[in-house]
Amino acid sequence: MRTLYQTMYCPRCRKVRIALAEKKQEFTVVEEDTWNLRDEFLRINLAGTVPVLVDPRSDETNDSVTVVGSATIIEYLDEVYEGTTLLPGSVKGRAEVRRLQSWFDDKFAQEVSSRLIFEKMERRALNLGPPDMEVIRAALEHIHYHMELIGFLTEHRRWLAGDELSAADLAAAAHLSILDYMGDVPWHKYEAAKDWYVRIKSRPSFRPLLSDRIMGMHPARHYDDLDF
Amino acid sequence: MRTLYQTMYCPRCRKVRIALAEKKQEFTVVEEDTWNLRDEFLRINLAGTVPVLVDPRSDETNDSVTVVGSATIIEYLDEVYEGTTLLPGSVKGRAEVRRLQSWFDDKFAQEVSSRLIFEKMERRALNLGPPDMEVIRAALEHIHYHMELIGFLTEHRRWLAGDELSAADLAAAAHLSILDYMGDVPWHKYEAAKDWYVRIKSRPSFRPLLSDRIMGMHPARHYDDLDF
Repeated sequence: MRTLYQTMYCPRCRKVRIALAEKKQEFTVVEEDTWNLRDEFLRINLAGTVPVLVDPRSDETNDSVTVVGSATIIEYLDEVYEGTTLLPGSVKGRAEVRRLQSWFDDKFAQEVSSRLIFEKMERRALNLGPPDMEVIRAALEHIHYHMELIGFLTEHRRWLAGDELSAADLAAAAHLSILDYMGDVPWHKYEAAKDWYVRIKSRPSFRPLLSDRIMGMHPARHYDDLDF
Repeated sequence: MRTLYQTMYCPRCRKVRIALAEKKQEFTVVEEDTWNLRDEFLRINLAGTVPVLVDPRSDETNDSVTVVGSATIIEYLDEVYEGTTLLPGSVKGRAEVRRLQSWFDDKFAQEVSSRLIFEKMERRALNLGPPDMEVIRAALEHIHYHMELIGFLTEHRRWLAGDELSAADLAAAAHLSILDYMGDVPWHKYEAAKDWYVRIKSRPSFRPLLSDRIMGMHPARHYDDLDF
């Protein structure tokens, strides 16, 4: 069976879960607390990071294949499986999807989501004391610029990277979904971004995320409401 | 003409320079000090990061294509140009190259190269005071683990990700090249890693890097010596 090693609140892992569902591929989840540096997991991925997909299917042999890192998993899924296309057919289109995927997985993560997740979730899990309110305030200020970008893109295109849904939408929605869980997305100020998010949130592939419940933290009231 | 926006000491930019040379594609370099947030550059890449490749060639139109980010540029070059294959033909092989490329561009950068570059080069350029010796010491300690990995891989494979040179080798060598400029690579302890680096360093694609001279800092004595 296909296995995804992940952490529930990790946005890149959430992106991979949506992608697997868009590809209609079933998988078992292993919840991995990466800070435990579990020996068995380090043998699967020496870097100790999630997500990691172990897939019994591979192209030329019957070996299973271990795919490390969310961008690499996205490329892998599109190379191997039918279903929703995550990266479009044109060279230019793929470059645009990869640019925006990295925008959210790297830049948005660094400026907003990783900070909020660390301060509000990981600190508690790791017993690292109370959240740093200055860091939270800065992250919540940075979010506006990114919401404006989403608004701008979706006013000019049907989806973030073009006319079709792509890995760029999955990445952005995955990051926003965990912030939405914490009640940190200022939806009321960004109608176009909200419309786009409602469209993604309504997809069957997104549903399993909406039933996630993170230990010690209730979701915001509208988190699993498709019509918030 | 093809244009690469880059910073001379940025390892991911160096990787792209080697890749372009392996593809036998000429290019003009624009040296971009990203902290200046130059308007014209932000219009090319809103994220304000390097490398960015602006290529007049594209697949289906005669428009130029703007490719942002080093991993995306690597994918693009392999999709569009003949020459050295940067990502191998098999699904499993590509996943392995992408894993190791990210190992160096993300993990090695975070633990070693970005820190040393910031402390030894950027602090001076930005007038941010003397280097933090604690950070430098920690980075220099972390490097050993990565050198062991390179040694381990090259004892089992001809190149880092398999029998053929790939983007994984380019990424690793690019990071090490800038550390080597600063004289920070403990080659004498890692014979296998050194043998591998000598092989890359001798390739014509690597030569232009060896004539780089970074303002205010002389290279280590063996930096441009192919037989160090």
